[in-house]
Amino acid sequence: MIEITSVNNEIVKEAVKLQQKKYRAESGKFLLEGFKSIHEAVKFGIQLDKVFVLKEKSAEYSFINTGIILTNNAVLKKIATTETPPEAVAVGIRPDNNVERLKNSKQVILLENISDAGNLGTIIRTAAAFGIGSIILYGETVDLYNPKCVRSTVGNLWKVNIVNLKTISELEYYFSDYERIATLPETENSVLLNNWYPSEKILVMFGSEADGLSDELKNYANKNLSIKMSKDVESLNLSVSAGIIMHKMNNR
Amino acid sequence: MIEITSVNNEIVKEAVKLQQKKYRAESGKFLLEGFKSIHEAVKFGIQLDKVFVLKEKSAEYSFINTGIILTNNAVLKKIATTETPPEAVAVGIRPDNNVERLKNSKQVILLENISDAGNLGTIIRTAAAFGIGSIILYGETVDLYNPKCVRSTVGNLWKVNIVNLKTISELEYYFSDYERIATLPETENSVLLNNWYPSEKILVMFGSEADGLSDELKNYANKNLSIKMSKDVESLNLSVSAGIIMHKMNNR
Repeated sequence: MIEITSVNNEIVKEAVKLQQKKYRAESGKFLLEGFKSIHEAVKFGIQLDKVFVLKEKSAEYSFINTGIILTNNAVLKKIATTETPPEAVAVGIRPDNNVERLKNSKQVILLENISDAGNLGTIIRTAAAFGIGSIILYGETVDLYNPKCVRSTVGNLWKVNIVNLKTISELEYYFSDYERIATLPETENSVLLNNWYPSEKILVMFGSEADGLSDELKNYANKNLSIKMSKDVESLNLSVSAGIIMHKMNNR
Repeated sequence: MIEITSVNNEIVKEAVKLQQKKYRAESGKFLLEGFKSIHEAVKFGIQLDKVFVLKEKSAEYSFINTGIILTNNAVLKKIATTETPPEAVAVGIRPDNNVERLKNSKQVILLENISDAGNLGTIIRTAAAFGIGSIILYGETVDLYNPKCVRSTVGNLWKVNIVNLKTISELEYYFSDYERIATLPETENSVLLNNWYPSEKILVMFGSEADGLSDELKNYANKNLSIKMSKDVESLNLSVSAGIIMHKMNNR
C-alpha cells in the first residue's frame, strides 16, 4: 500500500484536475467523496482507479481490493470539493450509459436543460427511492459527474439508468407506446396531480428551472400535468416538484 | 438620489457586514438580492433601509419610494453573496415574529435543528405554495436571514408565518388539540403517506437531515408518518420529503 503526504505529488495533481468538467470528459474519470459514496459505488460494481484514504481510517476501507493510497488531511482537502474534506476521496471510472435499458423501464423521467448540479443529484436520489427505471438527460444539461451532483445523490447515482438523448426522433423510437407527459404550471388543459392516474408505461418530462419545457417537448407530449398551488407563488423548486410527481408514480 | 461608485464607501462596507450572521443579529437587518426578492418584499410590506441599484436599471425600481442608491457592478458584486451579482441588492429590516398567529394556523410544520440554508429556503417556498399557515423553527436552526436561505425562498419568505420556539411546554400551549405527527423512516407503527388522511388541525414535525427527530419530539407526537420507498435507499432529501408531505396536506 502506498502513502502520499505531499499535495504537490503528481498523482494528487491528476486527481485535483477531476474537479474540472473538461478533464473529467477527457479522462472518463470522476471524483467520489466520502465513505457512503465510495461504499455504494463498490457495491454497485463501479470500478475505482484510486482511493485516497486518511491513514487513521484505512481499516474501514478493507472492502476495497486495489488502488488504496494512504494520505493525510492536507491532501484530502486539496482533492475534495467540500470545505471540510471527507476521510476519503476516490477516482472512479465512468460506467457506460446503457440506452437499451430504456426498453425495460416502464417509468421514465426526462430532464431538459437542467443546469443545477444539486437539483440533478437530488432528483436522481429521489428517483432511486421511488423505483423510477431510467432518467433521460435531454438538451444542454449539467455534467452528471460534477462533484456536487455526485454528492447530492448520496450514493444513489448507480441505482437508476441515466442516458443522454438529443433528438425527438430518438424519443420516438423508445416511447411511441408510452403516455408522454409534460409537467407545466397549471393551465386550462392540464390534469391536476391529484386527478392523475398514471398509465403503466409513462415518460414524464420536466423543463429547466429558468425556462420550463421547450415547445418541441410540449408538442411531443400527449398530456399536461400540473401541481395545484397558491396563485401567490410562481413555482416550486424543480427537485421538489419532481419529487412530488415521482411519489405519485410510485403509488399508482 | 445619491450615487455611490466606490467599494470602499462606508455605506457599502456596512451592507457587506450583513453577509455575517453576527452582524445581522446585532443590527436586525438583512440582505435581499435581485429584483424578484426586493419586489415581493415591498409588496408584502417589508421595510427597506437601502436599495443599491445598478444605475442603468433604476427605472425598473420606481416602485420604491426611499433609500435608493445608484451604483455600479463592482459595488453590487462586493455586497452580493452570489458569484454573478444581481442588478440590485437591498438592506431590509427584519419583521417581528408573530407567535400569536400560530393560533390561526390549522396546518403547521416544525423543523428541528435544520442546518442547511438552501433546504430551509426551499421548504418555506413550498409551504407558501401549499398554503401552510406557519413554520416553527425548533432547536438550533440555521439563520432564517442567511442570504442563501432568503434566495432559496425565491421571494416567498413573507408569505408564511415563521416563529422560533424552544421548549415542549411552548408547543403544548399552542398545539394541545392538534394531531401531532412525527415524520420518520418507515417503522412498524408508522402510517404510510398514501394511507394518511390529515385531520383539520395538524402539526407535522421534521428532524434534521443528519439525525432525524429527537426523542423529545418523537415522544410528543401522537402519530408517526412515513413515505414508502425502496429499501435500497436510505432517505430522501429533507426539502423533497417535506414537499411531498405538504402537497398531501394541501390536498386532504
